[in-house]
Amino acid sequence: MIVQSFFVPGIAHSSYILGASSTCAVIDPRRDVEIYVKAAKELNLKITHILQTHLHADFVSGHLDIARATGAPIVIPKAAGAAFEHIPVSEGDTLRLEDVLLEVLETPGHTPEHVTYVARDFARGPEPVSIFCGDTLFVGDVGRPDLFPGRAVELARLLYDSLHTKLLALPDFCEVYPAHGAGSLCGRSMGAKRESTIGYERRFNEALGITDLEAFVNSLTSGMPAAPDHFTRCSRINREGPALAASLPFPAFLNPGDFSEKMASPESIVLDIRDYSAFGGNHIPGSINLDLGGNFATFAGWILQPEKEILLVSDRPENVDAAVTSLRRVGLDRVTATLEGSIFAWARAGLPTSHIPQVSPFELQQMASAVSVPILILDVRSPAEYEGFHLPQAVNIPVPELRSRFVELDPGSRIVTVCGTGHRSSLAASLLLQKGFENVTNLAGGMMGFAAAGLAPACPLCVSPHGPRFTGQRGKNAHAGDREVIP
Amino acid sequence: MIVQSFFVPGIAHSSYILGASSTCAVIDPRRDVEIYVKAAKELNLKITHILQTHLHADFVSGHLDIARATGAPIVIPKAAGAAFEHIPVSEGDTLRLEDVLLEVLETPGHTPEHVTYVARDFARGPEPVSIFCGDTLFVGDVGRPDLFPGRAVELARLLYDSLHTKLLALPDFCEVYPAHGAGSLCGRSMGAKRESTIGYERRFNEALGITDLEAFVNSLTSGMPAAPDHFTRCSRINREGPALAASLPFPAFLNPGDFSEKMASPESIVLDIRDYSAFGGNHIPGSINLDLGGNFATFAGWILQPEKEILLVSDRPENVDAAVTSLRRVGLDRVTATLEGSIFAWARAGLPTSHIPQVSPFELQQMASAVSVPILILDVRSPAEYEGFHLPQAVNIPVPELRSRFVELDPGSRIVTVCGTGHRSSLAASLLLQKGFENVTNLAGGMMGFAAAGLAPACPLCVSPHGPRFTGQRGKNAHAGDREVIP
Amino acid sequence: MIVQSFFVPGIAHSSYILGASSTCAVIDPRRDVEIYVKAAKELNLKITHILQTHLHADFVSGHLDIARATGAPIVIPKAAGAAFEHIPVSEGDTLRLEDVLLEVLETPGHTPEHVTYVARDFARGPEPVSIFCGDTLFVGDVGRPDLFPGRAVELARLLYDSLHTKLLALPDFCEVYPAHGAGSLCGRSMGAKRESTIGYERRFNEALGITDLEAFVNSLTSGMPAAPDHFTRCSRINREGPALAASLPFPAFLNPGDFSEKMASPESIVLDIRDYSAFGGNHIPGSINLDLGGNFATFAGWILQPEKEILLVSDRPENVDAAVTSLRRVGLDRVTATLEGSIFAWARAGLPTSHIPQVSPFELQQMASAVSVPILILDVRSPAEYEGFHLPQAVNIPVPELRSRFVELDPGSRIVTVCGTGHRSSLAASLLLQKGFENVTNLAGGMMGFAAAGLAPACPLCVSPHGPRFTGQRGKNAHAGDREVIP
Amino acid sequence: MIVQSFFVPGIAHSSYILGASSTCAVIDPRRDVEIYVKAAKELNLKITHILQTHLHADFVSGHLDIARATGAPIVIPKAAGAAFEHIPVSEGDTLRLEDVLLEVLETPGHTPEHVTYVARDFARGPEPVSIFCGDTLFVGDVGRPDLFPGRAVELARLLYDSLHTKLLALPDFCEVYPAHGAGSLCGRSMGAKRESTIGYERRFNEALGITDLEAFVNSLTSGMPAAPDHFTRCSRINREGPALAASLPFPAFLNPGDFSEKMASPESIVLDIRDYSAFGGNHIPGSINLDLGGNFATFAGWILQPEKEILLVSDRPENVDAAVTSLRRVGLDRVTATLEGSIFAWARAGLPTSHIPQVSPFELQQMASAVSVPILILDVRSPAEYEGFHLPQAVNIPVPELRSRFVELDPGSRIVTVCGTGHRSSLAASLLLQKGFENVTNLAGGMMGFAAAGLAPACPLCVSPHGPRFTGQRGKNAHAGDREVIP
Repeated sequence: MIVQSFFVPGIAHSSYILGASSTCAVIDPRRDVEIYVKAAKELNLKITHILQTHLHADFVSGHLDIARATGAPIVIPKAAGAAFEHIPVSEGDTLRLEDVLLEVLETPGHTPEHVTYVARDFARGPEPVSIFCGDTLFVGDVGRPDLFPGRAVELARLLYDSLHTKLLALPDFCEVYPAHGAGSLCGRSMGAKRESTIGYERRFNEALGITDLEAFVNSLTSGMPAAPDHFTRCSRINREGPALAASLPFPAFLNPGDFSEKMASPESIVLDIRDYSAFGGNHIPGSINLDLGGNFATFAGWILQPEKEILLVSDRPENVDAAVTSLRRVGLDRVTATLEGSIFAWARAGLPTSHIPQVSPFELQQMASAVSVPILILDVRSPAEYEGFHLPQAVNIPVPELRSRFVELDPGSRIVTVCGTGHRSSLAASLLLQKGFENVTNLAGGMMGFAAAGLAPACPLCVSPHGPRFTGQRGKNAHAGDREVIP
Repeated sequence: MIVQSFFVPGIAHSSYILGASSTCAVIDPRRDVEIYVKAAKELNLKITHILQTHLHADFVSGHLDIARATGAPIVIPKAAGAAFEHIPVSEGDTLRLEDVLLEVLETPGHTPEHVTYVARDFARGPEPVSIFCGDTLFVGDVGRPDLFPGRAVELARLLYDSLHTKLLALPDFCEVYPAHGAGSLCGRSMGAKRESTIGYERRFNEALGITDLEAFVNSLTSGMPAAPDHFTRCSRINREGPALAASLPFPAFLNPGDFSEKMASPESIVLDIRDYSAFGGNHIPGSINLDLGGNFATFAGWILQPEKEILLVSDRPENVDAAVTSLRRVGLDRVTATLEGSIFAWARAGLPTSHIPQVSPFELQQMASAVSVPILILDVRSPAEYEGFHLPQAVNIPVPELRSRFVELDPGSRIVTVCGTGHRSSLAASLLLQKGFENVTNLAGGMMGFAAAGLAPACPLCVSPHGPRFTGQRGKNAHAGDREVIP
Repeated sequence: MIVQSFFVPGIAHSSYILGASSTCAVIDPRRDVEIYVKAAKELNLKITHILQTHLHADFVSGHLDIARATGAPIVIPKAAGAAFEHIPVSEGDTLRLEDVLLEVLETPGHTPEHVTYVARDFARGPEPVSIFCGDTLFVGDVGRPDLFPGRAVELARLLYDSLHTKLLALPDFCEVYPAHGAGSLCGRSMGAKRESTIGYERRFNEALGITDLEAFVNSLTSGMPAAPDHFTRCSRINREGPALAASLPFPAFLNPGDFSEKMASPESIVLDIRDYSAFGGNHIPGSINLDLGGNFATFAGWILQPEKEILLVSDRPENVDAAVTSLRRVGLDRVTATLEGSIFAWARAGLPTSHIPQVSPFELQQMASAVSVPILILDVRSPAEYEGFHLPQAVNIPVPELRSRFVELDPGSRIVTVCGTGHRSSLAASLLLQKGFENVTNLAGGMMGFAAAGLAPACPLCVSPHGPRFTGQRGKNAHAGDREVIP
Repeated sequence: MIVQSFFVPGIAHSSYILGASSTCAVIDPRRDVEIYVKAAKELNLKITHILQTHLHADFVSGHLDIARATGAPIVIPKAAGAAFEHIPVSEGDTLRLEDVLLEVLETPGHTPEHVTYVARDFARGPEPVSIFCGDTLFVGDVGRPDLFPGRAVELARLLYDSLHTKLLALPDFCEVYPAHGAGSLCGRSMGAKRESTIGYERRFNEALGITDLEAFVNSLTSGMPAAPDHFTRCSRINREGPALAASLPFPAFLNPGDFSEKMASPESIVLDIRDYSAFGGNHIPGSINLDLGGNFATFAGWILQPEKEILLVSDRPENVDAAVTSLRRVGLDRVTATLEGSIFAWARAGLPTSHIPQVSPFELQQMASAVSVPILILDVRSPAEYEGFHLPQAVNIPVPELRSRFVELDPGSRIVTVCGTGHRSSLAASLLLQKGFENVTNLAGGMMGFAAAGLAPACPLCVSPHGPRFTGQRGKNAHAGDREVIP
């Protein structure tokens, strides 16, 4: 038996090839599936099964694409009610890959239909060697049960049972292969390590340590990070069966004139994937800035409306592929155009542009101390980040909420957007400009830079020479830069 | 804490990056070290430690190269007596990477100086999370103690103690990251899985199951596969400090005339890395055939003399890089020339060639049944493979032994070389031609093809449509194709 | 004005982008057209015209593919009678690309409908700067007029007129951009240089030097190299409109069992694109050997029947793409399968194989002098090559003729196939085996090796350390290796 | 005989491989010479000669690098007084490559020591087929004779003689292969076409059309574009022998702290190769902005002092290679550091930044019409461009002159820099900031955008949807965007 893992940064998604001697299963596949076909070929294994632990909420899965590519059947919990051809499984069902036996445990909680696949390797011994537990148990965390409106308590109770009755009944030595790692919003505080063991989690997983049912339910139904908008969308798509990647449009390169024409439609939105410096320098009025960093997919899924046509602005043609792949991962399938010649062609065509000044900590301090023109410092990080560490005068509206909560702000005010490093705050600034705000400045370097400049007490976890990173168990203490991966 | 593994097929070597928040260690590095530098950069980690569990016998390690590239110190067991600058460690010593603590356990057995690094992740809890145990404990096997002439019993006793007193004292849930996987000759029968847990191995590792000390010693000092010649050589090189890769020669492309001139020196050897079909078709007289398949490095280290200059023949210029990297891994640093234009330029230059007919199973059967011209079927697999399954009339001389045991054969006889698939037997055939044998034929497809053709009872593990593969625990029963990875 | 040329080795085809300030034309495009789109983008030019000088006989052109990709119209001689949408042109018609004016001259001869495009660059001056003359005038040669059965004399007369009345009426300084270079079979003896001038050709082009009409016609209707079978086929395809490349099948990787099943159909043919050494070692019985060298496309178009499904054997998966592209260039669109795992998987599956011994010059000499077993030396080069230089006892049947003339040979005889270097003779040997011959040997290195070995007087043009090359004007004296490009 | 050309955009440099049957010469090589070695290998030719037509002024040549790589001798005019080992040639000397004969004509004018190599291909005929004339004769232009202070008239007279007595004595049909094309500053108005013929140039080359010596001298010693600073430097380096590329430093990636420390040295300069949008957004105070567009090498050679250490800021690690290659081409060999993590790491480290607002034409118009705060529009294009078309109120100081002429401007004024497209003006803006100016804005899109916006009469050559391009013969009328290649 062999296990090979595949990790997608940003959405922090882990998928697996579980191989026997000559056949293998792909578990919880991502949507760009060539990687599995290639890996299976290199391992000299034939893909014979496609396994889903549950209907993923945070990404559109590639089950149909890989089924089309290999002819292998899709195995998915019966309770998922999948609308495509599949093999439904429920408690106690088994699948066989030569010497490897997979048993199905129903482990609802993160979602109602969730199952865990328990692997036994009869080439070695009869006891469980590994589990593929999706979003039930993570390294250092458990799956959040609050994604279904009104069902959080119910699901938290089910999760308690799934964890304590089923997963913790497994032996200590059994390996744990979850579907997510640090950075995912399917949990609250996963560790950087991507695999673990039942025994280690039994001892050191804080959520598992809450043995009182009510306390457990309480803990998991409060203080959760906000769930991005696409979470409901992706679940539904995964149940109904996503469009095959091969059937989707690929953005055409359009010159400024044609691009501008396409922009005129209310059905379109301009997404500028350049970095905040470049976006700040000049950009197409009304465009949204989301650079191709670690959070691109998550924030795109969160902020953009799936029914719109997305028109891309990039300064590197080679990034268009990556952007399209990431957008498709969160169900944004309608990327129809790219601006040929980028913003430079736009400028040469004499078309209007907009700007966001990018200030350093020193400049922010100067602005703040200039009594003549008062500024509003808008901290767009999550509440947890904000609480951990923020500028005294800063107001907190997390960037996704800004889409509606912008009405709380005075459009005539002079706003400086702030986040951990400057990327999310540039998104926020672009949203404000789009809403008609005219005087918006971005703090380049964000709170990290501010602390590093000695203008605020340093936050030890965040201010490393290498930038903030997810590490270990961070539980209740969130930090500047916490949910932000530096591109 | 994060663990990233790196696997080299062929020598089946696993090395690791063990990362904390912003720093990391590289453990048991391979000699081409750019991969670690790149991976650390992607993980946003600074390489601050280079760790060796022991003096590797089967490959030349990249400790000096990566120390040069990063400035990080080399940590190595004190008992290794390393001749380069290093931090010596012994029982109970600890190293700290931010929240991660590494403790040194002395675990002699595979080698006298061997240590295991036990990792604790204080971001999560105080108990051991993972061990990096080099060649002490493998997935499904233990390190072989018989590589030091005359010391096998002594080392086997030490190993017993290292395993039972030290490693098995660790908790079941502790992860096991060994330095080798299936296919390595540092053990006898490792599993395909590349990592395991203490608890799983405690229960299902056959070698660990032999609790009687004498039985354990007996088992590990008998029936071991032969140890390639380079095993002693690499240990010594790793102790003294390998030459930096950047200082080594890279083979120049020489035209047939110049190549032929270089061949004239007794200090040189011609290594033909084409496949057996092409080598069989025509090759330079006296050249050795080792195609760039999975066993290339191991057999090259075994068969070739390190003091010789190696002159390459390849039909793909792009393979020269890979060959040089593999040869350097086993301490063959003097690859000085490549034949420009391959064998085709050689043929156009009118130079002499030699040939090895390639027969199919049916043709072998015909040859064997032709009473007029008797043939000798020479099975060059390992004794274990031979015993498991062979042609009734076949004589067994494992290919490495053929270097001296060719004298047992009649140079005038008509010999058909046989192995699992045809690759090793082509090496054997090339060795025989070099020794003056004139009538040597190779069984293309080997025993696998023979069985698949229905001419012999099928050997179930070997005859899959995907070729033979290492899988699970194979313990005492070796098979055709067992130690052979299909290129 | 700018001219960028694109050269396809093997068929020695030149095509061009002719650019003005912001628009450009593609002239005589090859079938894999992405290269023009990319180049035009880099030159910052929009492709607005697709020009054909004539219906190409030796390759399937990409006019429809590039029209689909760009929307540009196809300009083609009216007399071509093209079946697809196009702009027909005839004598005196003009096309304008900004400052660049293209005038159409009807220049029949190589084909009846042939035109030449004469470019004037009004940014500089009113006189012709360059001509794009297709296969009318070459560097050092003229287009062959003998490709239309029964019309050779008629076309030769037309060609004389086209050359002397039209092209030679152009000024000396006018640049000549032909559609072919050295190696093409659309002429007899082109130079290595890929462009020339009217004045230079006027003085030093031997064919143009024959000013007597009858002598000219005589010269061009005799002693021409044979025309491959696909020449008529491609003309027809180019007139009717080739299938779009995107609509064609791409070969699936099949395992030996499935491949073998597909072979059973009389509609299929196995094409082995490995080199002669490897093919000689072992191959699938009945397969044709054409390695991916310079002549691959030409001989494939010549030898293979377009209605058959082609099943590929390659030892490098990455070569499949190149083979498919080359086969499509000569109208072989039905490449449907590739043997997964190459001949090695075939051998491991125990399936039967066939062989062709590869001998060196010394070995051939030994065979030839062994009175006991007489051999037949079959020289498969063109008559011109044979006449220039051959082994005394050799019989000449050019390889394409061998398809029918094999009946002149005794199937029981021991045949050694010979060509310039060993590649074509391996094709010949494979054809003989397919016809039931059993004792066929190939001379590796061919006549070049034979001469280089000192066994025959050296042929100065052929025996260079770098192999034979097309160079300069070679007119009437053809040589060993002449029409053969070493891969 | 075969000719293969190699073009470097930006410096618009053409170099050549001139091949015979098995050997070839490289003529006027660029400094990154691997491309010749690779091409010669593909052509199956051995490089046996390295030819220089003269001491190149605008780039550092790779003669020593390729001599080191191949062992071939360097052939260079005797009058060059080269300080390295070479074969000196003068009038009438000949070189032989098999059938190809090269004759040396002394053609002083562009430089005193300049020669032309006249090729005859005896495989075809005795008359000249091609000339390699360096910077003597261009397509549509002649070499400028004004690069040697005080010698312009003398050299112009010599050039007249070289052209009229020597080159025009050659036959019309002879091909002309110059060392530069459109965009080079070694002439005034070369055409886009990269090769020509003697006859065509005789008729349509304006400079050649001035047959009166004094008028010719007058024309060539007045109205020349400014010569970049590195022109003298490169000549000297090429005479003395450039450092081997392999011996030069490659920039190390430094974190913001270390980078900042290196900046402290007066011996260093920070070069930011990001585009103007990104540079405008935020950059390191004091850094110079030169994006990696077509003019990168020329302006870098012009603006930067060769004795300084260059510290790079790039937002694409993969651009560092290209920048280093381009900088070396103009003799800037000391590129020692790159900012790891680009400006984002700098910002996260809380270090100070500077900014340049980027305005669109509409915004500029608004600024200009706001009576309260007067602005100075600084047009930094060449005088010829400025004269052709400029904003009424604009002041012209070409960007290279700004290095000293900034003193003419009031540091307290509000300046908007303007060029053809926004790239050069961003360089100018960065120079002004460096000199202490505080209020500098850049016109993104430049005059092209201004005209395209309908705010100024369109300049027909410049305002194409594809951006400005060099095309045809443009002689005396230079335009907006003229010397600017859009990246």
